[in-house]
Amino acid sequence: MRAAVIVAPGDPGVLEIRNVPVPEPGPAELRVRVHASALNRADLLQRRGRYAVPAGATALIPGLEYAGEVDALGPGVTGFSAGERVFGIVSGGAHAEFVLVPAPTAVRIPDALSWVDAAAVPEAFMTAYDALCTQAGLAAGERVLLLAVTSGVGIAAARIAAAMGAHAFGTTRTAAKLDRAAALGLAGCAVVEDAGQLAAAVRGWSNDGMDVVLDLVGGAWTGAGVDVLAPHGRLMLVGLMAGARAEIDLRGVLSRFLRITGTLLRPRSVAEKALVARAFERDVLPLLASGAITPEVDDVLPLERIAEAHERMERNATFGKLVLTL
Amino acid sequence: MRAAVIVAPGDPGVLEIRNVPVPEPGPAELRVRVHASALNRADLLQRRGRYAVPAGATALIPGLEYAGEVDALGPGVTGFSAGERVFGIVSGGAHAEFVLVPAPTAVRIPDALSWVDAAAVPEAFMTAYDALCTQAGLAAGERVLLLAVTSGVGIAAARIAAAMGAHAFGTTRTAAKLDRAAALGLAGCAVVEDAGQLAAAVRGWSNDGMDVVLDLVGGAWTGAGVDVLAPHGRLMLVGLMAGARAEIDLRGVLSRFLRITGTLLRPRSVAEKALVARAFERDVLPLLASGAITPEVDDVLPLERIAEAHERMERNATFGKLVLTL
Repeated sequence: MRAAVIVAPGDPGVLEIRNVPVPEPGPAELRVRVHASALNRADLLQRRGRYAVPAGATALIPGLEYAGEVDALGPGVTGFSAGERVFGIVSGGAHAEFVLVPAPTAVRIPDALSWVDAAAVPEAFMTAYDALCTQAGLAAGERVLLLAVTSGVGIAAARIAAAMGAHAFGTTRTAAKLDRAAALGLAGCAVVEDAGQLAAAVRGWSNDGMDVVLDLVGGAWTGAGVDVLAPHGRLMLVGLMAGARAEIDLRGVLSRFLRITGTLLRPRSVAEKALVARAFERDVLPLLASGAITPEVDDVLPLERIAEAHERMERNATFGKLVLTL
Repeated sequence: MRAAVIVAPGDPGVLEIRNVPVPEPGPAELRVRVHASALNRADLLQRRGRYAVPAGATALIPGLEYAGEVDALGPGVTGFSAGERVFGIVSGGAHAEFVLVPAPTAVRIPDALSWVDAAAVPEAFMTAYDALCTQAGLAAGERVLLLAVTSGVGIAAARIAAAMGAHAFGTTRTAAKLDRAAALGLAGCAVVEDAGQLAAAVRGWSNDGMDVVLDLVGGAWTGAGVDVLAPHGRLMLVGLMAGARAEIDLRGVLSRFLRITGTLLRPRSVAEKALVARAFERDVLPLLASGAITPEVDDVLPLERIAEAHERMERNATFGKLVLTL
């Protein structure tokens, strides 16, 4: 089968399309014929050799999510049949013609979604729903701030928050993306280039601060995110693009009863990922099926142009997901 | 009635015993004849004018917990009768012959507890139980690290953790207190004078780290507490003696799924404090009644010596609670 392969750690040029053996599904696995698969920042880190790949996952073939059809069932797998349209997250290997996926983590694709749209869903919407709703307990009427709202997860979070009746606000560091962000149904959106300007932007939206902050950025932004939390506010840390250390105002954490939580999907066990998939299936899938919320596709490229896709994401020039087709 | 009064912000000498009017209970309040009342660090801050006193609480008479007998019921109060032994937390005013308390927050004192022992219970055991069990969800078999284990809350936490089947470890900055701390039923105890030495001490107890850290200290200790958390670990921040800012390793927070939560009892609403009192009554009171866990009284002084009690606590020379009697 054709697969993108990281031939050595490095720049996008280390990605090559090679012919590799079609993998055989083991117990509790499905083999999925991939039709489309989106790019994630973790793919860039993995290409550079800077992302700890979970045990059992291949470091050679990137790709953390897929949309495709069931091709073969491993021993003992029930509940799926060949040809069914499924999507989901995997710990690697999706940028290939076939990928092995743990059957309990696969979700059926609603008829309304094309392969490309479906491929833009799993990582962004599962991450956003798990962080905002399952973990932070975002409630209708609450205010949620989305840092880096123009990322795949940020856009998914904006759409989920709006659908849940929360008031979502977003910031981006890139002025050129503001117009598109404004179309996300946000209650407010601003260009904030420096973490030190975040408090002023938030004051323009709410005197009390934010009930939830979805922090896809890290570094000084995490400290600034804590500072704009209202009493009983929750900051969900899901990314570290801006740095791995932060100075935190502990007096604010204590006196405002704040909660800071770190979370990732990728290192979780299959059983934990299956729980995430079931919650997504129950609460988000109907909204995608009805068109109440939609994924955001920045562009579609054939797998053969994966190096170009990496370059674009690295330049921070995307709005929504870059989808590779096979 | 006699009451300790803060006549001006300042050193312990600003505390005077004065005659003030006996307060009249309003709706949903009890008037309690105080027999004993312990000291808390927040009293010291309040004396210096550095603690934001909750709305409605008196800034003049300190005292955040009491043990006494019901003296009078406000309009509409049912479920209590005069002469009943009760204890609990209040937002101020307990260092006096009579204190007004919201009836839903009062808890009946088990027969086994003297006035002095009862006075050493509410703030420490409610804070520890709420932080460790209600909020951090400490489970049997988990490892919990108690920073400043020789404080009133630290000792209460050690006893609650042991009773719940958790493995409790403690640190103190004062070598002279280590022997007494060792008698608390801890699985491990060490003198750690500098936050930079915490990781080495914890490695001596567990290679995996701690499931829960109860942080009564703040400052650099919070950063060090985060560093010793095991995957899915929870740090509960309940005090800031060592400072109000911390540098946090966000990569650890993210990759180990950590949670940092700030919490205080004092600013909570009456309804919230009543919930804390009910949980304490259900889960901790039976253990106190049976003698399975006991409060720790450092010393007992008459109310008239309150200034001396403040001095001793400020010198950090106590092990357990200083109780004032009336």
